[in-house]
Amino acid sequence: MTTNQDQGPEEPEQPRHSERSVVRLQRRGSDEPRDVDLHERVQGSKPGSRFLRLTRLREQKLRRVAEHEFEATKVALRPAPPAGRAWATLRRVLIGEPLASSALSRERLSKTKALAIFSSDNLSSSAYATEEILLVLILVGTGALTNAVPISLAIAVLAAIVATSYIQLVKAYPRGGGAYDVTKENIGERASLLAGSTLIVDYVLTVAVSTAAGVAAITSALPELRDLRIELAVGFVALLTLGNLRGIRESGNLFAIPPYFFIVTFGGMVAIGLVRLALGHDISAPLQSDAVPEGTHALTVFIILRAFASGAAALTGIEAIADGTPSFKPPEAKNAATTLGWMAAILATLFVSTTLLATQLDIVPSESKTVVAQIAAAVFGSESPFFYAVQVATAMILILAANTAFAGLPTLASVMARDGVMPKQFAFRGDRLSFSNGIIVLGIVSSIVLVIFAADTHKIIPLYAFGVFMAFTLSQAGMVIHWRRTREPGWRRALVLNAVGMITTGVVAVIVGGTKFLDGAWLSMAIMAALFVVLWQIRSHYVDAGKQLGHGLTGAQMVAEHFYVASSGRPQNVIVPIDEINRAVLRTMAYARTLSPTATAIHVTDEPAEAEALREQWEQSVPDVPLVIVASPYRSLIEPILAYIDVLDRSQPNQLVTVVLPEFVPKHFWHRFLHNQLSLRLKRALMNRHNIVVVDVPYDFR
Amino acid sequence: MTTNQDQGPEEPEQPRHSERSVVRLQRRGSDEPRDVDLHERVQGSKPGSRFLRLTRLREQKLRRVAEHEFEATKVALRPAPPAGRAWATLRRVLIGEPLASSALSRERLSKTKALAIFSSDNLSSSAYATEEILLVLILVGTGALTNAVPISLAIAVLAAIVATSYIQLVKAYPRGGGAYDVTKENIGERASLLAGSTLIVDYVLTVAVSTAAGVAAITSALPELRDLRIELAVGFVALLTLGNLRGIRESGNLFAIPPYFFIVTFGGMVAIGLVRLALGHDISAPLQSDAVPEGTHALTVFIILRAFASGAAALTGIEAIADGTPSFKPPEAKNAATTLGWMAAILATLFVSTTLLATQLDIVPSESKTVVAQIAAAVFGSESPFFYAVQVATAMILILAANTAFAGLPTLASVMARDGVMPKQFAFRGDRLSFSNGIIVLGIVSSIVLVIFAADTHKIIPLYAFGVFMAFTLSQAGMVIHWRRTREPGWRRALVLNAVGMITTGVVAVIVGGTKFLDGAWLSMAIMAALFVVLWQIRSHYVDAGKQLGHGLTGAQMVAEHFYVASSGRPQNVIVPIDEINRAVLRTMAYARTLSPTATAIHVTDEPAEAEALREQWEQSVPDVPLVIVASPYRSLIEPILAYIDVLDRSQPNQLVTVVLPEFVPKHFWHRFLHNQLSLRLKRALMNRHNIVVVDVPYDFR
Repeated sequence: MTTNQDQGPEEPEQPRHSERSVVRLQRRGSDEPRDVDLHERVQGSKPGSRFLRLTRLREQKLRRVAEHEFEATKVALRPAPPAGRAWATLRRVLIGEPLASSALSRERLSKTKALAIFSSDNLSSSAYATEEILLVLILVGTGALTNAVPISLAIAVLAAIVATSYIQLVKAYPRGGGAYDVTKENIGERASLLAGSTLIVDYVLTVAVSTAAGVAAITSALPELRDLRIELAVGFVALLTLGNLRGIRESGNLFAIPPYFFIVTFGGMVAIGLVRLALGHDISAPLQSDAVPEGTHALTVFIILRAFASGAAALTGIEAIADGTPSFKPPEAKNAATTLGWMAAILATLFVSTTLLATQLDIVPSESKTVVAQIAAAVFGSESPFFYAVQVATAMILILAANTAFAGLPTLASVMARDGVMPKQFAFRGDRLSFSNGIIVLGIVSSIVLVIFAADTHKIIPLYAFGVFMAFTLSQAGMVIHWRRTREPGWRRALVLNAVGMITTGVVAVIVGGTKFLDGAWLSMAIMAALFVVLWQIRSHYVDAGKQLGHGLTGAQMVAEHFYVASSGRPQNVIVPIDEINRAVLRTMAYARTLSPTATAIHVTDEPAEAEALREQWEQSVPDVPLVIVASPYRSLIEPILAYIDVLDRSQPNQLVTVVLPEFVPKHFWHRFLHNQLSLRLKRALMNRHNIVVVDVPYDFR
Repeated sequence: MTTNQDQGPEEPEQPRHSERSVVRLQRRGSDEPRDVDLHERVQGSKPGSRFLRLTRLREQKLRRVAEHEFEATKVALRPAPPAGRAWATLRRVLIGEPLASSALSRERLSKTKALAIFSSDNLSSSAYATEEILLVLILVGTGALTNAVPISLAIAVLAAIVATSYIQLVKAYPRGGGAYDVTKENIGERASLLAGSTLIVDYVLTVAVSTAAGVAAITSALPELRDLRIELAVGFVALLTLGNLRGIRESGNLFAIPPYFFIVTFGGMVAIGLVRLALGHDISAPLQSDAVPEGTHALTVFIILRAFASGAAALTGIEAIADGTPSFKPPEAKNAATTLGWMAAILATLFVSTTLLATQLDIVPSESKTVVAQIAAAVFGSESPFFYAVQVATAMILILAANTAFAGLPTLASVMARDGVMPKQFAFRGDRLSFSNGIIVLGIVSSIVLVIFAADTHKIIPLYAFGVFMAFTLSQAGMVIHWRRTREPGWRRALVLNAVGMITTGVVAVIVGGTKFLDGAWLSMAIMAALFVVLWQIRSHYVDAGKQLGHGLTGAQMVAEHFYVASSGRPQNVIVPIDEINRAVLRTMAYARTLSPTATAIHVTDEPAEAEALREQWEQSVPDVPLVIVASPYRSLIEPILAYIDVLDRSQPNQLVTVVLPEFVPKHFWHRFLHNQLSLRLKRALMNRHNIVVVDVPYDFR
């Protein structure tokens, strides 16, 4: 790093040095060159010491930490151009000030907040799982409805098995991969990608289904909003996206109240109802006029299984805590496990008691009033404020179930990105330390789903739930193998539990997939399969790229390679496409000559006479650089240059061809359209060529 | 251009040369390096002699003409990637094989074809100008209609003056700038830009009005197509665009028949009518039941002037031949002048005799039947095939009037682009030697106008015609000054004629602009003013850019500058942002070291521990290149690099900073999303910075 002045006699241009200041004054007019700075520069190659002195003069974008080590400050984040600054301000308003990575541990969730965020999806299912069971049993007749209680108990047992297994899973695989991690380690990569794809699709569907259901609750109260259904749903998704981009702690603050409000009101309703029944009060609900008509099916094992499978929707959302483990305060795994236990316990209690109350109150599913609304009306009376509180709490938890997906998917995606099966971008933390790319993609994709299905719950529901049970089955299978492998104390009991869980969730997956297949489950299966293929391709590409880039080579091999490429990489063929002789061209040419003393200018022309005039001018102005003229009878400018490069390539197949282009840096954005056309098109054409280095030399207009 | 092998001892890497082939075999497996080629290369800097030998081996994309001179062949136009090839094939099918520039003279128009192409707009006005006059006069009463004859004679005289003046203009300014050229040379640049903007806007409106009118003629015959009005109009514009992209000669072949068909049928109708009247036949037309109601205005000078101004629409389209002069076969100016004379004569004849016939036949304008249709019905009978022939010919000429704009505007735009008042792209000739960018832009903009105004003639008409008369007035004024300046033989008479023309067209411009102002002329005036400002900005930018680029400097000054920049342009600060150590990074690093021996690697990190591990690995693998580590606590990757460059910039304000980036060239398009994110974003951020050269070193995956 020495200046020209100091190199003195080595520079061939030096003898002409006296011309310099004259020309310069001619060039820039009043813009006095800062030669002082040039002479003052510290010699040698110690950037560190130089920068320390210089940064004092500046607004401290960089802080020197040690020799060759710096730290960027918040000032560096302030973008220079006005557009960039406006965007940064908007971003700051919407999602808040950027947080330093060191704040990560402060951003973690307490168990209280985590329960709120991660349980929304799971607990919301207690608002409809009972109804799902009754809707199947009514096909047999009102007499069969009491079967709901044993079925709900069986589901509660299954929930306990799955939750227990996930508690063990969280402790064994705390990095947030959930079913993906356990299958990857115990079954294999393909199985893990299958688990990953099913979970990703189901998270997207969770967002779509739950916002659609929440909006349906709102529009049934305010029918005049029905036409704005899609806009409302997409608006909610946008709010959730923004809230989550603000960081997981802030989204915890924002979204923590509704789940607790739901637990209190819903739990209160169930408790009061059961107490009043026990005290012998007569609170049976009136039969709804539009009760679902009874069917004439016999009470077969198949009907029982279908009712079981429908009610098993209550299990959705258990996975989320496993995927969100890294968001917990340390000790992460322990806290996550405790929270998971609480969640399962609350769910089981609410669900079983709701089912019990519904059968005791002889409630029959109706088309206009949900089972929960009927219970609330029976317990509180349909004019009571408590009745409305239950309705509001239910609507809120249904919408917030979507928030669970926003807490779970981005972490899962980041784990998969770090494993090289999703694009690397999903592993970057955004301004607020959340995995912002995952959040944004989830928001966009679920909005697209909402638009495609017109935010209609009935159209989206059939696509949903199959993926959850696929993932459960895979993760249970993984745990079975895990126990066989590790043989930790108590592994036999755990293995049996997980095997039972695996079989049961597998059967549910088959029933859910089978009964819903034609209604839409085929579509989600197809998308899961497609996603699986894409993820596999990404994985293959990263593996392949890593091999080619030399991942896994030893240090010595790398050193050897370094010297090989260092010795063979010298660019020999430097070409500069020019259209006329001007300062930008001269500057580009001068730069090109620093790359290679044999740099060549190339001019493509469709008017040979003009080209000859240019050659004369060129030989007069730049006698030391050869000018190649390529006639282009078809007026194309790009292809003849490519053809010329082809010839160079052919003659030296192992050499790089360096194309040096002048690039105009315009004062105004729109001036860009008045220049650079050749450069831009040539760059695009060269982008996919091997062995071509493109160099942009800026020429700025003032 | 010497190989490494031959430079020998000067290369610091040379001692390690023995490692080379070993490593290489390790790298590429079976892909044997072609060392023979490397050794065989001809020494010295005579690319010419080398290429001659090499091109023999290839498919002859380049043909050597002389030392340092080549010619690209048609083979070079064949694009390599499949997408590019499909696009090229489609283009070939739609607009034909590319034509060599040498075919330009063969593409010129004979007078016969030129008359067809350039007269469509002008002659089509004889189909409605009479009606326009009658529609004003009827405001006074049927008794006033006979005033149409002297008015049409006055318009014919005005047409003769304008045509004569344009004949002189074409001879004096044959390069196709028309009113723009004459005002530029005689009045000034601002006036010429005003003429240019008014003409451009009017050409666009010509396309919109005439396709809308043509489609209206079709939908009044086939009312079921009314809902497809916009689609039909845009479809016609697309056809005209394609036809003109095929080249002016082919568009001549395509569009030459309808104008002659119109001249024959329309002329026949007028001639037969006048002869039958002279012979005393009773052929007066029956009064239309829906005749336009009579007004009660007095026959004031204002009414006469308005009638005159309305009929003066017959003059539109005279400008086009002046703009299209370069499309004529040589001698261009003489042929264009002759054609212009013929066109004006045909127009005047058809127009005056139509008006005469209309008044003799006591025709009153009606709302359902055009004046021409009434004449045709009177002359031939309304069931006669000749009646229908006149209708069809009229509809065809109305649509083809748009074609005149396609012949005129692109040439005008190319002249203005060469003068640096429109973007340079308008001066490029496309595959078929037509000014394809002008054609495409005209097609797109007029389609937008058609969509905005729902292809409704009545909405577009008020915007139209003012610009034509503005341009006429400016060009006449220019000619007046031209005569005063040149004082050629007969200049006094010519000057008087042009002065009369200037005043008359000026008055018409004021009347047209005034009466139509609130109906829409304000909008076209506003757009003309805006376009004027834009053109002026473009001109200022090009002038400014030209000054900065050193246009107008003498050869000696250029030489001086060349040596100045050559001596000061040496890049000293070369930095290579890296994310890890891999082959692509090593290769990039090696390239960077050829640019400067003091090239520095820079690594931005948000995990200092990882960065320290990287430093250790780096110092082991690449001990000769310093690695700067910048901690980025806010995880931003781009800004810390920019901040570092700022510091470098600050320390050496006159030096270029060269940023060398690895660029992955992926096998599949979509792989791009899995790499290059940093490079792409960094390049975008650097694009608008001064003094930064960006170098892309490709690394291709196989």
